[in-house]
Amino acid sequence: MFIAFEGPEGSGKSTQIMLLSGWVRERGLSVLTTREPGGTAIGDRVRAILLDHAASEMSPQAEVLLFSAARAQLVSEVIRPHLEAGGVVLCDRFADSTMAYQGYGHQLPLDKLATITEFATGGLRPDLVAYLDIDVQAGLRRKQQHAQDDAGQWNRMEAKALAFHERVRAGYLAMAAADPARWLVVDAGQRVEDVQGHLRARVAEMLQLAIGDR
Amino acid sequence: MFIAFEGPEGSGKSTQIMLLSGWVRERGLSVLTTREPGGTAIGDRVRAILLDHAASEMSPQAEVLLFSAARAQLVSEVIRPHLEAGGVVLCDRFADSTMAYQGYGHQLPLDKLATITEFATGGLRPDLVAYLDIDVQAGLRRKQQHAQDDAGQWNRMEAKALAFHERVRAGYLAMAAADPARWLVVDAGQRVEDVQGHLRARVAEMLQLAIGDR
Repeated sequence: MFIAFEGPEGSGKSTQIMLLSGWVRERGLSVLTTREPGGTAIGDRVRAILLDHAASEMSPQAEVLLFSAARAQLVSEVIRPHLEAGGVVLCDRFADSTMAYQGYGHQLPLDKLATITEFATGGLRPDLVAYLDIDVQAGLRRKQQHAQDDAGQWNRMEAKALAFHERVRAGYLAMAAADPARWLVVDAGQRVEDVQGHLRARVAEMLQLAIGDR
Repeated sequence: MFIAFEGPEGSGKSTQIMLLSGWVRERGLSVLTTREPGGTAIGDRVRAILLDHAASEMSPQAEVLLFSAARAQLVSEVIRPHLEAGGVVLCDRFADSTMAYQGYGHQLPLDKLATITEFATGGLRPDLVAYLDIDVQAGLRRKQQHAQDDAGQWNRMEAKALAFHERVRAGYLAMAAADPARWLVVDAGQRVEDVQGHLRARVAEMLQLAIGDR
């Protein structure tokens, strides 16, 4: 089972992944958590290029191709082997980030992005996309507070304009509406435990686990 | 005018580019020489990942996408601006390297590679592809001798099997045969001056320059 977590900056993905991975692991399953871009030695080097402030002159096409390269390596080196061994993979961002950020956000052609993504992933798609939805301004504010505690976390992606983030959010919501069987939209403005409850309910259903077992 | 130089390892591309750039420059044109992958700060970081021996576990898809990312950046930051200013660009490898190495060599689907390339380049194609053709074994031998003089030049690409390089060469020859107006195949087994002579003859014709002017 492959679950991707998507959502605007500051939507709380990493906290929810941490909580969910512990819960799934307690139920005896082998859980692997990873993140995009990165998760492999090659991907981490690509991530460093992408997040570098000095890369502000990066063309939108180069950006898409770098994210896709990191994704291709992550799928072949990490995700596919773990799934083939019967494990559960929780991934912080996956291909739908490219559709949302570079497609809806930067307005690059969605059909081209879909072709590149299909090439990068070899057709692998998440069984579930957990989209943590949050008001754009609230999300950026949360993330900014976090950045003050933790210097260096504020990156090029997050410095982009508000209008861009609004297009990204609208893109996520459109993708979720078009494929409700595979997407779960959760209001990330709720308390952490409530967001986690929604995620566990859906995952339990998919894994045919009873909630509260053990 | 945009000229890409293609050919197997050891075919003498860099020497020919150096000679041709001097000759074009003497005729009063603004010449820019560059190479793939690399040619930009972002591209050089991508090049380092690609050439790193430690990257031997790289997936073929990640490799294509990294080359394409470097290409996208090179086109937008370097090649297109120089062409738009009326200059001549000589590039050591371009998109047909992806078709030859990853397509014909690694046998990834040519149609997918063409789509990714078109996305990366924004549809920019060389006016001339100068293909320096050489027997695969002779080419690898040349390059290996060179590597002994210059440690560190022997890289992951060149360590690949002979059969792979034979497929790459066949791919180049097939592409050249399919588009003779845009490709010039030169036997790189000739003396350096003779190879250069063929290149100058074609470029002079394209630039409507008389050979031997000045």
